[in-house]
Amino acid sequence: MSMIVNRRDLDFMFYEALGLEQVLQSERYSDYDRESLDAMFDLCQSIAEEEFLPCAGKLDANEPQFIDGAVETIPEVKQAISAFKEAGLCASGYDADIGGMQLPWMVDQALNGMFVCANNPIHIYLFLTQGVANMLNACGSDELKDKYLAPLVAGDWFGTMCLSEPQAGSSLADITTKAEPLADGSYKLTGTKMWISGGEQDLSDNIIHMVLAKVPGGPAGVRGISLFLVPKIRVNADGTLGERNNVALAGLNHKMGCRGATNTLLNFGEGGDSIGYLVGNENEGLANMFHMMNEARISVGMSAVMTALGGYLYSLDYARNRPQGRDLANKDPQLQQVMISEHADIKRMLMTQKAFVEGAQMLMYYSSQIIDQQKLSDDTQQNKRMGLLLDLLTPICKSWPSEYCLEANKLAIQVLGGYGYTREYPVERLYRDNRLNHIHEGTWGIQGLDILGRKVQMHDGAAVAILREEIQNTIDAAASHKALTGQWTKLEAALSQMEETVKIVAACEDKALALANATIFLDAAGHIVIAWMWLKQAIAASDGLANGSAADAAFYQGKLAATQFFFRYELPKACAGLALVSELDSTCYDLTAEQFLGA
Amino acid sequence: MSMIVNRRDLDFMFYEALGLEQVLQSERYSDYDRESLDAMFDLCQSIAEEEFLPCAGKLDANEPQFIDGAVETIPEVKQAISAFKEAGLCASGYDADIGGMQLPWMVDQALNGMFVCANNPIHIYLFLTQGVANMLNACGSDELKDKYLAPLVAGDWFGTMCLSEPQAGSSLADITTKAEPLADGSYKLTGTKMWISGGEQDLSDNIIHMVLAKVPGGPAGVRGISLFLVPKIRVNADGTLGERNNVALAGLNHKMGCRGATNTLLNFGEGGDSIGYLVGNENEGLANMFHMMNEARISVGMSAVMTALGGYLYSLDYARNRPQGRDLANKDPQLQQVMISEHADIKRMLMTQKAFVEGAQMLMYYSSQIIDQQKLSDDTQQNKRMGLLLDLLTPICKSWPSEYCLEANKLAIQVLGGYGYTREYPVERLYRDNRLNHIHEGTWGIQGLDILGRKVQMHDGAAVAILREEIQNTIDAAASHKALTGQWTKLEAALSQMEETVKIVAACEDKALALANATIFLDAAGHIVIAWMWLKQAIAASDGLANGSAADAAFYQGKLAATQFFFRYELPKACAGLALVSELDSTCYDLTAEQFLGA
Repeated sequence: MSMIVNRRDLDFMFYEALGLEQVLQSERYSDYDRESLDAMFDLCQSIAEEEFLPCAGKLDANEPQFIDGAVETIPEVKQAISAFKEAGLCASGYDADIGGMQLPWMVDQALNGMFVCANNPIHIYLFLTQGVANMLNACGSDELKDKYLAPLVAGDWFGTMCLSEPQAGSSLADITTKAEPLADGSYKLTGTKMWISGGEQDLSDNIIHMVLAKVPGGPAGVRGISLFLVPKIRVNADGTLGERNNVALAGLNHKMGCRGATNTLLNFGEGGDSIGYLVGNENEGLANMFHMMNEARISVGMSAVMTALGGYLYSLDYARNRPQGRDLANKDPQLQQVMISEHADIKRMLMTQKAFVEGAQMLMYYSSQIIDQQKLSDDTQQNKRMGLLLDLLTPICKSWPSEYCLEANKLAIQVLGGYGYTREYPVERLYRDNRLNHIHEGTWGIQGLDILGRKVQMHDGAAVAILREEIQNTIDAAASHKALTGQWTKLEAALSQMEETVKIVAACEDKALALANATIFLDAAGHIVIAWMWLKQAIAASDGLANGSAADAAFYQGKLAATQFFFRYELPKACAGLALVSELDSTCYDLTAEQFLGA
Repeated sequence: MSMIVNRRDLDFMFYEALGLEQVLQSERYSDYDRESLDAMFDLCQSIAEEEFLPCAGKLDANEPQFIDGAVETIPEVKQAISAFKEAGLCASGYDADIGGMQLPWMVDQALNGMFVCANNPIHIYLFLTQGVANMLNACGSDELKDKYLAPLVAGDWFGTMCLSEPQAGSSLADITTKAEPLADGSYKLTGTKMWISGGEQDLSDNIIHMVLAKVPGGPAGVRGISLFLVPKIRVNADGTLGERNNVALAGLNHKMGCRGATNTLLNFGEGGDSIGYLVGNENEGLANMFHMMNEARISVGMSAVMTALGGYLYSLDYARNRPQGRDLANKDPQLQQVMISEHADIKRMLMTQKAFVEGAQMLMYYSSQIIDQQKLSDDTQQNKRMGLLLDLLTPICKSWPSEYCLEANKLAIQVLGGYGYTREYPVERLYRDNRLNHIHEGTWGIQGLDILGRKVQMHDGAAVAILREEIQNTIDAAASHKALTGQWTKLEAALSQMEETVKIVAACEDKALALANATIFLDAAGHIVIAWMWLKQAIAASDGLANGSAADAAFYQGKLAATQFFFRYELPKACAGLALVSELDSTCYDLTAEQFLGA
């Protein structure tokens, strides 16, 4: 079995649960059909398994080194990136007008997901580059696009996002990097950026930094932030590389996981001028940066899902092949040992992983499909409607997998026991890699404030109303399957409780108190959405069991069992969480810094 | 503030909540009073802070190396151990008759806890040695004790426990290490032992392995296991060291955390005879090994608690000193930033850590006190009664901190954000260190089977009845504090639900089905016991607030708030878990290996 993908499940989600075939019938994606996509998945799977997966452990143990101001990476990484480039995969995330493959975004996510699962650190460079190119394409001037876009799309140059500074992580209002206008329309940047993934490396010919900075004299706070393109090496008028642009690597951060991707402290304007070019208008930098944030946050969630999928597949395979102990009913030591996958608690841990990973994976594809549908439709009303739904789902896409797929990685270690705790097996590395996702691109707490402080309230709660309509559609479909009655009624009740909670929070005049349990709301809302995703899968699995191939019976039964698990073991937790939020419980909020220790 | 201990809290638990002063009035502990113990805590704190804590990060980054069949450890470890020995602390865990300090066990746990918090990997060697010496003292012949006990107690020789083998971790019935009797009454051991902490090192003059092995011709399974003392270097009749005993280091395991303590694969009888000496009788090895298991499992729980305490203290200190963002009520960027300890979600994460760490810490001391009281009392009826309670609490002591204090370590990382994810800060290391505790000395799943399959059922449920009586005593005491009414009524209800659940499980004829959710029962029972521990603390804090020093008001308020948090945010989860167990839910248990993936 593959350690990076369950192709049967991918087919199930795409074609049985989400109707990708309909999307493929559109003019926009007419280059593709199921057969050609299958071939592409075959190709990607083999490159990921042959070039990305084998060096993942070595790269973790031999992270890039900072030597004489430059970075040195083990050669396997360059080889893997070459294979990815040669297969044309750098172009997977762009439209045809800029040289891209113009794939449905959900397909692009799934293709790239195999590489994430195989070796997330390498993929971080590729993912960031795609984000930079798309941002430049959406917000940059024609002049900038002419000069910088093609090498980014080709994967010859890589990109980075430079938001945080040592003193300003979540609080971008407080960044101090300065951009002073020069006579020729360019800017001179000075300042220090922290946590910059891929900020320096020895893998691409140039690095294009997208930098948030303040033009002196502008408004205070986030309203005074502008976005600049700052190359590592200046680019001549003919596109050839010129002099260094004085972006100095001040140091590498040594991370718990994702060690193979550099994370840097960069000094702009050290030892000479760092020249940057305005992207979009002055003081609109944050909006331009956030242009891509929905997609970036879904990609973070996708990374959490794929990292957990790696742990799930590995621990499942291990459990099926590791003999240990005997049935509780007859522990006669003369009997042969059973595989540990026969033990109830191992099943519980595998089931939990399955429910978390496949539930979250479905949400990632569902959310990606919203983006695809928006591109296909001229119905502005419906597009706006689905855009609002996506806005609501985005903090869940980012955070739910970062929490629960991380928990899945923890369980994968436990399934392997002592072996799982060693670096000779991949599961502990996958945990460490995944621990990042709750932190970057907006922390857990920030996502909580986003959903409860903004998303559920915006346009008089329009997004929650749309969520209700969409969930209701699924409930209506479930109603024709008698076996799913217990599940859709529970989902309906949980959703109603969430709606009530939102009303109570909206009515609370003390805004800080109202948001005191925002993270718990985020978790609970996530559980409700994942329960919905499982109900969607249960409908498709019920249909498959009734009408599909007999050889698939076990697969469909597994889907129905995981749905049952999620509704019985997990969904009740959402209701307990919502109760706390709607009671406006202030137990934590009231505590002062002194009361924690008494000193 | 100290990063390894909250002395005010230690005093609170010992003298205000658990009445250590009464224990100290006994003849057995007459060498000690509060003043002398305070001085001892001062000494230990300074050695732990000055010798153990500073090298913890370096040791993690420079784990012991396997070079030419031997181990090399960084010199700071030897220096720390020397300081520990010179202070006489190797003797802290023994009675006076074998040269020990004869401290109350709860005091010994707390003293050692500071070293665990400062640098758990170093302390693992010391903890194992204490376990071996106590086991030898309890089960060994006078001849063995005369020869081996003194250097172990002095800390000149270290000890190990050799249970697992590559093919037999949880399933000791399947070990194959062989012990063949020799003419002189000793045995020749051959076989391979896996996961042996401290199995080889360059820190002590000799290593005394306590090895489980089978004498040929004995019964199958665990009934045929015997316990042997096998020295690394043979000991001459006069106590001097002789030849090597052919225990070969086959390899080091490279762990996720606790990297500073070697974990080894050992071959017995490689290149010559490994001579061992029977401890206790043949075929009684498992019982002899388990003689110390209650104490060892409490120590594992203690290690989980202390590792989480380190993360809690560090992240609290960080949060109080890291400016970032502003109050939600007024986000004007011209205002100064607030410390992140002012943000509601940071408070939630700190409160969760406090509730988990201090709740579990109280359980460790409470359980230790049971052992102390047994030593003090001649009332065999009462001793038997408390022994049963301790048997019931032991799997909780082992597993609850391994789960929830690990969660605390995860939150400590989150409080520090990006910084927490780097190895430049200690919180990610503490997470990695703590991840071990769910695995060694009986995994999570094994503890679940222990509590639900044995402990709650033994002697017709006597242990649960005793737990009810002891909790009832606390409830009675709480009843005189009006503010605690909501809490003791919730505890009473949860306990009743647990009793009902035990009855349903006992009545189920399908034993495997009855135990299918044993781990969830273990978690839920743990939550009830920890709620009890918080109620005990709340009573003492209420008294302190009414009668104690005004300067302590914030401390007591913090205790009451944490109690409230645990009852509101956590205890409801126990009820949901018990509902699943008592429904005999078989969702996971029914799943076949094929249904997970469909292949």
